[in-house]
This record gives sequence, structure tokens and C-alpha cells, in this order.
Amino acid sequence: MSDQFNIEIPEDDNLPRRVCKDCGWIDYVNPKIVVGAVCTFEDRFLMCRRAIEPRKGYWTFPAGFLELDESTEDGARREVREEACAEVEIDRLLAVYSLPHVGHIQIMYTARMLSPDFAAGPESLDVKLVTWDEIPWEDLAFRTVRWALRHFDEVKGREDFSAFSNPEPIE
Amino acid sequence: MSDQFNIEIPEDDNLPRRVCKDCGWIDYVNPKIVVGAVCTFEDRFLMCRRAIEPRKGYWTFPAGFLELDESTEDGARREVREEACAEVEIDRLLAVYSLPHVGHIQIMYTARMLSPDFAAGPESLDVKLVTWDEIPWEDLAFRTVRWALRHFDEVKGREDFSAFSNPEPIE
Repeated sequence: MSDQFNIEIPEDDNLPRRVCKDCGWIDYVNPKIVVGAVCTFEDRFLMCRRAIEPRKGYWTFPAGFLELDESTEDGARREVREEACAEVEIDRLLAVYSLPHVGHIQIMYTARMLSPDFAAGPESLDVKLVTWDEIPWEDLAFRTVRWALRHFDEVKGREDFSAFSNPEPIE
Repeated sequence: MSDQFNIEIPEDDNLPRRVCKDCGWIDYVNPKIVVGAVCTFEDRFLMCRRAIEPRKGYWTFPAGFLELDESTEDGARREVREEACAEVEIDRLLAVYSLPHVGHIQIMYTARMLSPDFAAGPESLDVKLVTWDEIPWEDLAFRTVRWALRHFDEVKGREDFSAFSNPEPIE
């Protein structure tokens, strides 16, 4: 479909976009939103081993792409349900991380498990509840998983805290 | 281009998507991200009167769609520059609002103007610095503008606060 488009700056815009030669339709490419939740039951963390690429076999808390018709909190709860078959109550917004090099914005919450029940969903090879020291730090799937866990620890037990942003520059 | 697509559930997915009959390309439609900033200089608020639809002629603080290659903070600063020709320092994350009925996620910051200088950019009919009581409450462009201003007021002067979510259900 590529020769159907011109690259041009639409009227009233200020950046080049793909514009259909036939109908003038403008292909705005937008950042994608990832929603996730650091889920705890008492002092333990819900961790999932990814059954899908990218980073298959590595560990994360439940997170994934927000769908069009859901709120960020609903999306985070859905990901927990899909990946770990667990039910949570969303607590607070923990962080908004920007990964402009891949066009992702990650919106991370803290969440409390309503019970210690969980199981591996279709996108997980394994799910477990682990203490802080048992988190597989060397085998985390993404740096944002490490960022969010450390940010969680930094404000643990506090009523109010400012939501975090990237703790380190993206190289 | 509509008859080029089937509506089907791709392998490894769980929702129907538009899939190209020829090449199998999946048209994932994602929520769009709006970034904005409640900008203040001392006790005054930076407000812009929109020169473009939707809600042309109504008032907002600087906000707009995040571009693919920028962080949420950079996007908010860019919108302030484009709409109000002002320079700000981003302070804190104020709120993440979800508008699933229009597929928007709005990420709102608080920001301090580095000087009281401003001017109307091409997307603004007028820009002004107003006190809380002078905010044109009856002529705000969107309910999220009202939400963010009220949330700002609620935590005014506080060092730490939890970022807000929607204050009322979306009907």
C-alpha cells in the first residue's frame, strides 16, 4: 500500500505525515499506551514469566497495550486478569514512563490483590507470588519493570507520593 | 479502502481487528494520548482561547496530541510553546484522565512559567494570564480542562500528592 501515500505536511499541521493520494486521508501514527500494575498480596509481588515475544521467558508484572474502549485502570485490571488470572483493586498511579524511541508511553499503577489466588494465563509460562528478595532481578523482561518495582519500593507504605517519571535517560 | 479488510480475530489475539485481505497487515487502532499542563506564574493561570475546532473560541490551558518521538513532558512543553509562546518547567504529574468513548487518554502536568511572557500561537485566538476567579469557567473548551484546574486547586502548595484520575464517571 506504500505507493498510495505521499509524505507531506497537511494544512494546519506542522509535521510530515503519510497522506493518501486518492482521498487525502492522513495516517497519524500515535504513541501506544502500555498499562500495567505492580500487584501485591501482603508483602509479596505478583510476577509473570512471559510466554510470548518480545522477551519470552523473562519476568514482568502484568502489563500490556491499552485497548481503544477502556480506561487506563480498566486496562491494567484486564491485563492482571489475562496474564495472571488474578483480581486486583487499583490503588494509585505509580508512574508514567516515556519510551519515545519505541513510541510507547507506559502508565503503571499499584494494585492490591483481593486474594492470593492466581494462575498462568495464556500469555504467561508461569506466575508466582514472591518476596522482594525473590524477585528475579537478573531476568526481568524490560527496564521499565525494574524501574516500577524500585519506584514502588521507594514510596512503600506512603499515603501520598508524586507519580514518577523515567528515573534515567533513554539512550 | 474499506473492502480491502476483513474483520477477524488475529492469531494470538482476543479481539476483532481490521486485517488486510492481501498482506495480513493488522490495523491496531490505539487510544490517542493528549498531554497538557496547568501553567502558572505566581498566582495566575495561563489560558488560551482555541483558534481551531473542536470548541473553537473556548478556553483551555495548553494541551494537544503527543507526537510519536517525544516524552510526555516534552510534549506538554511543546504544546505550551506552540499555543502560548511560553516557556515552562514541568513540575508534577497532576492527573491521568481516561475518555474511552473518544479513545483519548489525557496526561496532565503542573508547570511553572519561567517568565510572565506569552503570546497567542497559531492555534490560539487569544492567550492571557488570569487569577483563579478570572478563569472563564462558563467558556471552558472541555470538561477535562475544568477537572484539571479543580484538581490543581485541591492540591495547591502541597509537595506530594497522588495523581488524579477521572473525578466523575463518563456518561
